[in-house]
Amino acid sequence: MKMSDETSVSELRAQVDEINMQLLDLLTRRAKTVSEIGKLHTSMGVSHYDPSREAEMLTALERANKGPFSNETIKALFREIFRASLEMEETQARAKIRVQRHSPDERTVIRMPDGYEIGAGGFSVIAGSCAVENYDQIDQVGAALSARGVKIMRGMAFKPRTSPYEFQGLGEAGLQIARQVADKYNMYVVSEIMDLSQIPMMLDYVDVFWVGARNMQNSFLLKAMGKIDRPVILKNGLAATMEEFLYAAEYIVSSGNPNVMLIMRGIRTYEKWTRNTLDMGTIAVLKQECHLPVIVDISHSAGRRDIAKPMARAARALGADGLMVEVHPNPPVAMSDAKQQLTIPEFNTMMDEIVQMA
Amino acid sequence: MKMSDETSVSELRAQVDEINMQLLDLLTRRAKTVSEIGKLHTSMGVSHYDPSREAEMLTALERANKGPFSNETIKALFREIFRASLEMEETQARAKIRVQRHSPDERTVIRMPDGYEIGAGGFSVIAGSCAVENYDQIDQVGAALSARGVKIMRGMAFKPRTSPYEFQGLGEAGLQIARQVADKYNMYVVSEIMDLSQIPMMLDYVDVFWVGARNMQNSFLLKAMGKIDRPVILKNGLAATMEEFLYAAEYIVSSGNPNVMLIMRGIRTYEKWTRNTLDMGTIAVLKQECHLPVIVDISHSAGRRDIAKPMARAARALGADGLMVEVHPNPPVAMSDAKQQLTIPEFNTMMDEIVQMA
Amino acid sequence: MKMSDETSVSELRAQVDEINMQLLDLLTRRAKTVSEIGKLHTSMGVSHYDPSREAEMLTALERANKGPFSNETIKALFREIFRASLEMEETQARAKIRVQRHSPDERTVIRMPDGYEIGAGGFSVIAGSCAVENYDQIDQVGAALSARGVKIMRGMAFKPRTSPYEFQGLGEAGLQIARQVADKYNMYVVSEIMDLSQIPMMLDYVDVFWVGARNMQNSFLLKAMGKIDRPVILKNGLAATMEEFLYAAEYIVSSGNPNVMLIMRGIRTYEKWTRNTLDMGTIAVLKQECHLPVIVDISHSAGRRDIAKPMARAARALGADGLMVEVHPNPPVAMSDAKQQLTIPEFNTMMDEIVQMA
Amino acid sequence: MKMSDETSVSELRAQVDEINMQLLDLLTRRAKTVSEIGKLHTSMGVSHYDPSREAEMLTALERANKGPFSNETIKALFREIFRASLEMEETQARAKIRVQRHSPDERTVIRMPDGYEIGAGGFSVIAGSCAVENYDQIDQVGAALSARGVKIMRGMAFKPRTSPYEFQGLGEAGLQIARQVADKYNMYVVSEIMDLSQIPMMLDYVDVFWVGARNMQNSFLLKAMGKIDRPVILKNGLAATMEEFLYAAEYIVSSGNPNVMLIMRGIRTYEKWTRNTLDMGTIAVLKQECHLPVIVDISHSAGRRDIAKPMARAARALGADGLMVEVHPNPPVAMSDAKQQLTIPEFNTMMDEIVQMA
Repeated sequence: MKMSDETSVSELRAQVDEINMQLLDLLTRRAKTVSEIGKLHTSMGVSHYDPSREAEMLTALERANKGPFSNETIKALFREIFRASLEMEETQARAKIRVQRHSPDERTVIRMPDGYEIGAGGFSVIAGSCAVENYDQIDQVGAALSARGVKIMRGMAFKPRTSPYEFQGLGEAGLQIARQVADKYNMYVVSEIMDLSQIPMMLDYVDVFWVGARNMQNSFLLKAMGKIDRPVILKNGLAATMEEFLYAAEYIVSSGNPNVMLIMRGIRTYEKWTRNTLDMGTIAVLKQECHLPVIVDISHSAGRRDIAKPMARAARALGADGLMVEVHPNPPVAMSDAKQQLTIPEFNTMMDEIVQMA
Repeated sequence: MKMSDETSVSELRAQVDEINMQLLDLLTRRAKTVSEIGKLHTSMGVSHYDPSREAEMLTALERANKGPFSNETIKALFREIFRASLEMEETQARAKIRVQRHSPDERTVIRMPDGYEIGAGGFSVIAGSCAVENYDQIDQVGAALSARGVKIMRGMAFKPRTSPYEFQGLGEAGLQIARQVADKYNMYVVSEIMDLSQIPMMLDYVDVFWVGARNMQNSFLLKAMGKIDRPVILKNGLAATMEEFLYAAEYIVSSGNPNVMLIMRGIRTYEKWTRNTLDMGTIAVLKQECHLPVIVDISHSAGRRDIAKPMARAARALGADGLMVEVHPNPPVAMSDAKQQLTIPEFNTMMDEIVQMA
Repeated sequence: MKMSDETSVSELRAQVDEINMQLLDLLTRRAKTVSEIGKLHTSMGVSHYDPSREAEMLTALERANKGPFSNETIKALFREIFRASLEMEETQARAKIRVQRHSPDERTVIRMPDGYEIGAGGFSVIAGSCAVENYDQIDQVGAALSARGVKIMRGMAFKPRTSPYEFQGLGEAGLQIARQVADKYNMYVVSEIMDLSQIPMMLDYVDVFWVGARNMQNSFLLKAMGKIDRPVILKNGLAATMEEFLYAAEYIVSSGNPNVMLIMRGIRTYEKWTRNTLDMGTIAVLKQECHLPVIVDISHSAGRRDIAKPMARAARALGADGLMVEVHPNPPVAMSDAKQQLTIPEFNTMMDEIVQMA
Repeated sequence: MKMSDETSVSELRAQVDEINMQLLDLLTRRAKTVSEIGKLHTSMGVSHYDPSREAEMLTALERANKGPFSNETIKALFREIFRASLEMEETQARAKIRVQRHSPDERTVIRMPDGYEIGAGGFSVIAGSCAVENYDQIDQVGAALSARGVKIMRGMAFKPRTSPYEFQGLGEAGLQIARQVADKYNMYVVSEIMDLSQIPMMLDYVDVFWVGARNMQNSFLLKAMGKIDRPVILKNGLAATMEEFLYAAEYIVSSGNPNVMLIMRGIRTYEKWTRNTLDMGTIAVLKQECHLPVIVDISHSAGRRDIAKPMARAARALGADGLMVEVHPNPPVAMSDAKQQLTIPEFNTMMDEIVQMA
C-alpha cells in the first residue's frame, strides 16, 4: 500500500461526495416535479400510478445508458426512484416505521388497569400452562403463579395444531376457566386469538390478546388487533426474519394500537437439541432497534425444561423486558408440550434464580 | 482353522437363529400390547409419546442389565424399539389420513365445470400476473394464456405483504377485472383468500380458491375451505415441513372438501441464488405419498425468470401434475415480483419447451 | 379535466425526462469514479465494502436533504446506489473467476484416457457402493455397472464419519480392491481423499479424486488438488451456498487443474422427508453460470432409494451432465448408507428410465 | 377419560414391562453367543463382520414376521442388534463417549504453564484481532488486552477464506509477530491450524491450537490434534448440529488429548440481523452434557460490534466458561471482519460490563 494510492483514494472519494450532492439535488428537483404532476392528476381524478409511463422512461434510460452500470442495474435504480416518488406521494404522512426506536430512552410501556407495567425497566414473568385442560389444573397453576407475583397468566383455549386430529383446545369453556382463576388470584388473562371473528367473544374474557407464530403474517388479523383497546403480544413466526417480525408489529401499531409486546421463541433450523433456535444476538438487536417490550419465550425456544434457569438468566442479561414460561402441575400428562412445561417446584426455583439477579 | 471350530460356529449360529425368532416373537407381542395402549390413549385424547414413561422403562432395564452389553447399548437398542413402536402407532394413525395415497392408481382429479381436469395424468399450466393491477394488463395476459390453452388464470387481488406500506392489491375491484377477462377468454379465476370473512364476496368471482404460504397453518381458514364447493390450491408455508403441509391439506379435506391441490414453492434457507429452496426429492416423495394433484410454482421458488425452462422441464420429469408461473406484460414495472414474472414471449418459449416434452 | 392541465402534465413530464437523463449521467460518472477506487483498493488488498464510509456519506446526505423526500427515503435510495456500485465491482471481480461461464458454448469437458468424456453433452452415470467392504461386494457391483456402460466406479476406502467409533473405511486395502475390480471391468476408480498427505499413495490407485462435503472449504486440500493431473470431483459442503461452492472450485482451478466436476448433494435444512434439500433452481443456475460439468448426487440428496427414478429424470431435465448413485448387492447389511443404496435390480431399472429419456 | 381406561393402561404397561425384561434376557443371551462365535472367528483368523450371514438372518426374520411391525421395521431393529453386537466386540473398551459429563462436578480444566486456568469456574476472555496484519496492530491490541488481564491472545496467521483471491493471512511471519507480542505482554498465543502438515512449524509459536469451523469434521486433523500436548480450541462447524460438534471433540479426546475447549459461534440460518444464529439453549445444554470448557464467540456469532455488551453478559449468564472477542485498533480498515471487531475503547467498555457481573 503506497502513499500515492491513499492520496488517490482520498481525491476520488471527494469527487464521489460531490456527485452525491448533485444527485441529491436532482432527486429533490425530480421529486418536486413529480409531486406537481401528482397534484394535477389528483385534480384530474387520475391514478398516480401509471405503469406505461414508467415503461417509457425505462426504455429511454436503457437506450441512453452506455455503462458501466448494466441496463438491469439502471432499471432497478430508477424503479427505486419511481417507487420512492410514488410512496412519497401516497404515504408522506405515515412515512416512518412506528415501531422503530429513535433514542435509547424511547420505550413503549404497557400499563395494565391496576398500574402493573411491562417495559418500564423491570423484568416481567408471564406464565401458565400450555393449554387450559380443566379448572383444577389452572387453579393450581394460578395459585403458584400469583404467590410469586406473576400478573399475566396464560389462558390458552384455542390451540393451533399441526394435525387436525390433535387436541385443539377447550374453546370458550377454557376461557371461562381462565377468567375465573385469574379473577380469584387477581391476575390478567392472556390468550391466543386465531381468527378475527373471535374478537367480540374474546373481549369478554381476555385482558391481553396473543397472536401466535402461525399468524404472525396474517395481515387481516394484525390489522384487526390494531383496532382493539387491549394490549397484544405478537410472537415471531416459526421461520420469520427479524425484519418481517417488526413489520408484522407495524401492521398492528399503524392500525391504531400502540400497546404491542414482542415475544421471541426462536426459529426453525436443523439443530435438534432444542426445539427452536433462539439467537442471542437478535434479542440484543431487537432491544436496540425497537421501543416495544421484548419477552423471551424460554419454553417454546428450548422445548425442554432442564435449562429453564440458564435461559431465564440469559434473557435478563440480554436486556429483555421479561420472559414467558409454561408451568403445569403434572407435565408428563399434559395434553400438549409435555416435554417443556415446568413443574410448580421447578417454576419456583427458576423464580428464585431471577430474583437473585435483580 | 480346525474342523471342530467350524462345527462349533455352526452350532452357535443355530442358537443365534433360535434366539432371533424368540426376539421376533417378543417384539411382536410387545408391539401388540403397545398398540392397545395407543388405542386407549387415542380414546383418552392423550399423546402417544410419553417421555417420562420411556425414562422409567430405561431406568428399570439399566438396573436389570448385567452385561455383556453396556447400559449405553441396551438403552440405545430399547430406544430403537420404543421408536419403532411409536412409528408403528403413528403409521397406523396416518393410515387414516385422508390425503395419503394407498396405491399408485389412487389419485384425486380436480374437474372444472367444463370438464377440464387437473391431476388426471396431464400437465396443467396455471398462470397469470402476480397481482391484478389494471384491466389492460390482465387482458393482455389473458389473451396470451388462452392462446396457449391455459385454463386457470391468476386473478390476485389481495396481496399478503411483509410491510403494511407495500401494495396490498386492488381488492374486490381486482376480482372484477379478473372475472371479466377470464369470462372473455373462457378461463377460470384462481385468487388468494386471506381471511374467512372474504368467502361470501369471493364466491361471486372466484372459481378456485388459493390459500397462500402465510396462511398454510391458519386452521380456521383451512376448515372454512373445507366447507366450500370449489377447488382449493394450498401452498406450502415458507418454512413448513412436508409433514406439516400434508396435515394442512388434511384440515381442508377432513372438513369436507376433497378438491385440494398442493402447490410447492420451496422453503426458506440460507441459499441466495434462488428465492426459495425447492427440494427435488420432496416433490417426488409427495407424488408417491399423497393422491392430491401437485403443482410446482416455478416463479416463487426460483425468484428469477432466467431458469423458467429447466424448472418447467424438471417439474414435469418429477411427475408433478402441473406448474404455476407468473406472467406480466412488462415485468420491470410490475407492482410486485418484478424479478420473477415472465414476459409474454418468455412464457411462450416456456410453453414450447413443455409441449416438446409431452 | 381541463386541457391546460394536460398540457402542464406534458411539460412537467418533459422536465422529468430531462432530469432522468441528468441522473443517468451522474450515476454513470459516480460508477466510474467508484470503479477507480475499487481498482486501487484491489491493488491495496482492501475490501471493497466499507460500511463506515457509507455511514459518513449517508450522514452528509441527511444533513443536506431539505425534502420533499424524507431522510429515510434519501438514505434508502442512496443505499441502493451504493449497493449497485458494489455489485458492479463484484461483477467485475467475478468476471475474472475462472469457473464462470461466459457463453452457452463454453464448457469444460473431462476426458478420460480412453476417450470417455463427461460434460460434452451426454449424461454420465457415476456409481458404486458407498464404501468398499470386501472384494465380492465390489466385484458384483462392478459387473453390474460395467454391463450398463458405467465407466467411473466409486471405490471409497476412507470414510468421513461423524463419530470416531463408526466404520472409517478399509483404507489402502479398499483401494486395492477397487483398482482390481475396475481393471477387470475396464472402468475408472473415483475415491475420496481426506488429507493432502494421502496424495502420493492414492495416485497409485485412483483415476478421479473426490473431495467430499466436509472438505469443500479445506483450502489446503483444494490447492493441492490443483497440482495433480487427474480430474477432481468436488462436492458441495453440507450447508454451503452456491457462491461458496464456486469459490471452492476456483481454489482448485486457479491452482492449476482445470478438470473439475461439481457434484450436488443438496444442503442441510429442517425438512425430514429427504436427507438433504436439493434445490432444483440452483442446479439450473449452476449450469448457466459455470462451465464445469455438474453431476447430481441422487443418493445423498434423497437419502432413500424409493425415488431414484424421478430424481434421475429430473437431473437430466435440469441439464445436468450426469448423476451419481450408490449401488450395493445387499443394502440392508451395508456398513454405511443402508437406506439409500440401490440394489442391483433397482439400479438397472433406473438405467432403463434414463435411457428412455435420451 | 374413564377410570377403567386408566386401569387398562396400567395393566398393559405392566405387561410391557415384563416383555422388556424378557427382551433384555434374550438380548443378553444373544450377545454372549455372538461373543463366543467372535472368539472362535478370532482364533480362526476370520473377520467378525459377515454381511452374507446377516442377510440370511434378515431373510429368515422377514419370512417369519407376521406383523404388526412391518418387515422394514423388523429389519431395521435387527440391524441395530447386529450392529450392537459388532460394536460390543470391537469397541468394548472404548464404549463410552469421553467428552460426556456424568455429574455436575465433572469438569475439564485447561491449565496453562503459568497456572492460568480455563474451565475452573471463572470467566475467561480470549481476544485479539481477526488476523495478524502487522506488528504495530498486534502490539497495540496486545497492550490493551494485557492491561485488562487477558491471557490468551489471537494470533491468526492462516485465514480460511471463501475466495482464493481474498487475504489468506501472513503465514509464518504472522506467527512470529504474535509470538513476539505475546512474550512482551506475558500472554499466550492461540492460532488456527488448517492442515496437519503445519503442526511441527506451529509448535514453535503457538500455545493453543485452534481448529476452525471449516475443519470441524476434518477427522485427520482432529486425530492429529489428539497427538499434541497443547490445548485445542474447537469451533463448531458453520451448520453443525451439537451432536456432531461433540463427536468432533471426541475425535481429539479419544486420540489422546483431553485438553479441548469448545467455542460456539452459532450456525447458518436465513436470519440477516446477525451473521450467525447462536442458540441460547444449546449453550445451556452443552454445559450440562459435556465437561469441556465452553467459550462463546461473540464476534462471529453477532457479526456486528454494537451488541458486544449484551452478548458478553448473556454468555456469562448462560454458564459459559468464557468468551472470545475480536479487537482491532481501527476496525474499518481491517483486512477481514471489519464490521465485527471491537475498537480498543469498545473492548474496555465490554470488560467493565463483565467485571460488574462477577
